[in-house]
Amino acid sequence: MASSTIYEATCSAPVNIAVIKYWGKRDTSLILPTNDSLSVTLDQDHLRSVTTARADPSFSSPPERLWLNGVEEEIKSQGRMRTCIDEMRKLRKGLEDKDDKLPKLSTYGLRICSENNFPTAAGLASSASGFAALIYTLASLYELQPAVSTSHLSRIARQGSGSACRSLFGGFVAWQGGETTDGSDSLAVEVAPQEHWSELQALICVVSDAKKGTPSTAGMQRTVATSPLLQHRIREVVPARMKDISQAIKARDFNRFAEITMADSNNFHATCLDTSPPIFYMNDVSRAIVQLVEEVNRASEEAGKGKIVAYTYDAGPNAVLYAPKENVSLVLGLIRHYFPNADFDDTFNLLSSGANASHRGANQPASPLPTQEQGLPAGFNSAVIPVHEAGAVRRLIHTQVGDGPRLLARGGADDEVGLLNAEGEPKRLQRSKRA
Amino acid sequence: MASSTIYEATCSAPVNIAVIKYWGKRDTSLILPTNDSLSVTLDQDHLRSVTTARADPSFSSPPERLWLNGVEEEIKSQGRMRTCIDEMRKLRKGLEDKDDKLPKLSTYGLRICSENNFPTAAGLASSASGFAALIYTLASLYELQPAVSTSHLSRIARQGSGSACRSLFGGFVAWQGGETTDGSDSLAVEVAPQEHWSELQALICVVSDAKKGTPSTAGMQRTVATSPLLQHRIREVVPARMKDISQAIKARDFNRFAEITMADSNNFHATCLDTSPPIFYMNDVSRAIVQLVEEVNRASEEAGKGKIVAYTYDAGPNAVLYAPKENVSLVLGLIRHYFPNADFDDTFNLLSSGANASHRGANQPASPLPTQEQGLPAGFNSAVIPVHEAGAVRRLIHTQVGDGPRLLARGGADDEVGLLNAEGEPKRLQRSKRA
Repeated sequence: MASSTIYEATCSAPVNIAVIKYWGKRDTSLILPTNDSLSVTLDQDHLRSVTTARADPSFSSPPERLWLNGVEEEIKSQGRMRTCIDEMRKLRKGLEDKDDKLPKLSTYGLRICSENNFPTAAGLASSASGFAALIYTLASLYELQPAVSTSHLSRIARQGSGSACRSLFGGFVAWQGGETTDGSDSLAVEVAPQEHWSELQALICVVSDAKKGTPSTAGMQRTVATSPLLQHRIREVVPARMKDISQAIKARDFNRFAEITMADSNNFHATCLDTSPPIFYMNDVSRAIVQLVEEVNRASEEAGKGKIVAYTYDAGPNAVLYAPKENVSLVLGLIRHYFPNADFDDTFNLLSSGANASHRGANQPASPLPTQEQGLPAGFNSAVIPVHEAGAVRRLIHTQVGDGPRLLARGGADDEVGLLNAEGEPKRLQRSKRA
Repeated sequence: MASSTIYEATCSAPVNIAVIKYWGKRDTSLILPTNDSLSVTLDQDHLRSVTTARADPSFSSPPERLWLNGVEEEIKSQGRMRTCIDEMRKLRKGLEDKDDKLPKLSTYGLRICSENNFPTAAGLASSASGFAALIYTLASLYELQPAVSTSHLSRIARQGSGSACRSLFGGFVAWQGGETTDGSDSLAVEVAPQEHWSELQALICVVSDAKKGTPSTAGMQRTVATSPLLQHRIREVVPARMKDISQAIKARDFNRFAEITMADSNNFHATCLDTSPPIFYMNDVSRAIVQLVEEVNRASEEAGKGKIVAYTYDAGPNAVLYAPKENVSLVLGLIRHYFPNADFDDTFNLLSSGANASHRGANQPASPLPTQEQGLPAGFNSAVIPVHEAGAVRRLIHTQVGDGPRLLARGGADDEVGLLNAEGEPKRLQRSKRA
């Protein structure tokens, strides 16, 4: 049973979606990337991983146990999880050695329980938010901050899952690839905080896909090994774009931000196609969304206005659309017209209650095309893509730029927030199956 | 009416399909490419353009008339057709100036009639074979050869349609991009004749596509203007591949030929995707064919054998599959299994008469998967792609490496072959409409 004092922390961490893509490792065990990358942190109120970690001397054999979405996972030696836990213990040990009034948590066993609030069905990678939540929770449990900087923590999260290092900050985050062989300079830094450009919102279009694509871990190394174009991307394309998009973000220049974001998404998928054998992540629905976005932007610019929206695609068919708050209703209207019957998380209550009532994929006719009164540019060619079959886009998630990891609770298993019960077991088991 | 002696020639020219792709012009009026390219000439017995040209002093006002597939076309001043005709007249004039016994054909009016034996529905570009047939026919009418070399003629065909220069030779043909600003060194040369590797065959898979993609003339210049990756392709990727594939062809090394052909097709489409806005030519069916080819090659190599087949895609969704003669039945069986009900031109009578009877797109069930006895590699994963809906591949055309342009007939409107009647008008009008 647990000792009198309960050493426990529960934290949440956000998802991030890159606008300058990470693709390729120069060191696969330390997870050192072949190029810098830059991402937007999304709001934890909508998408998050929550982790509870408890340290207790009574926890032993094994000294650590881990549950992900209610399913216990083995912590493999030599594994990434192992590395992260050991590194965090080491940092705690360092503090204990300096101050012997500190309880020797580094010697205690650990119970770790983590859950995502988004089902895998959302088609979103959970490793970034998951490892960020793990590292931030252990840092809170071990009270490492401020002694240990967040960028230092990001170095450890990086070794769990590369892009996890970017989820340790809110707002706009750069992962500096670094040059050293030990990875000491491969870490995340804040480019701009959430508040700097809080009007930036995101609409995630979850695209139905028959078969699972190439896993990114395997795919990116195949690209490194076989794509002649990737080397040019690494040497020439990305360094220039990192500078340019950082400036665009600092200037809140959506037009430039959109231009670079779309170009880099296409550049990344071009290197996947240039891989042997080629890797395909975007499908015909992904491409139709690209064509829709390009057309509404073209019409808007032709009307002397700026771009309306930007697309970006990770290692899958889903589109993440970034747009300033004032454009999202139009973008949503366009997506719902051309891609009927998507389940829609109307988190910002954009739809009239009437529409709201029927927005959960019920088999209603396609929503009407937005009108010019609703902001559709006059020159928009409505025949740019056909109205797709119901469910071609399965689900829409509307969110916005968000903050970094949050401490939700300390201590007591009595609190509502913690995921572990008094015995140090998950309050909810098998949740993943029910999701 | 026509003068006593009839000056007329009728010639045919082949289609060519590039294995190192031409994409981008350094001079759009002279049609000078940004990189070298290399193609395989396909057999005129299956796919060809036929042109009849007649010169007669009675032809005037206008001095030239032109019919394409039975439809009269205006010859625009400053147009590409205009350039080609003027250049050919100039060459004839040169001979007449040297030898005044020659009739002054360069001063006569012209009637030109051209037809393709493949409907546009085949989804094959006809400009290459069309301009090659035009140039070769005028060269025959004007009796320019041997005084004028075929490579010289290819320089003129190039100004009609870039890839047309490659259709002036049979077998394996390189278009040397050249460096001069006047284009004098931008011409086609034979890498190896048809007889050198006559076992190489092609299966063209015509893929249904909802909407027409970006026209290549506009698309390639958008890529030149916006794709950072294209510059790397031009400077680094293509020059090395031109050398390598020429060696592979000389050595009849299908494995290497296939490897480079597939890599360059993917590299070309990668630069299209890297264009802003991105250009998409391949669709989900195109990609499924890629995955099928990669899987059967993987399984064959795993079994210690070489590659079975290679794919290449031009500016559209159609796949052109190259394979040694002995592999084509297997490839055909695979395509017909996963893509049922394609119309099939069984030019080599590969199918049993029974299958033959029902091969014209009748709605029969998918053909069975080829067996290991039929050459399917043991390790082949039959779940690599799903069996597609009937007609996803609309049509299959089986052909082989072929020879260069042919002179079919001279003189007399009485001959069966010529396309013009005694009055110098097309024997068949509006054929394109009936095709």
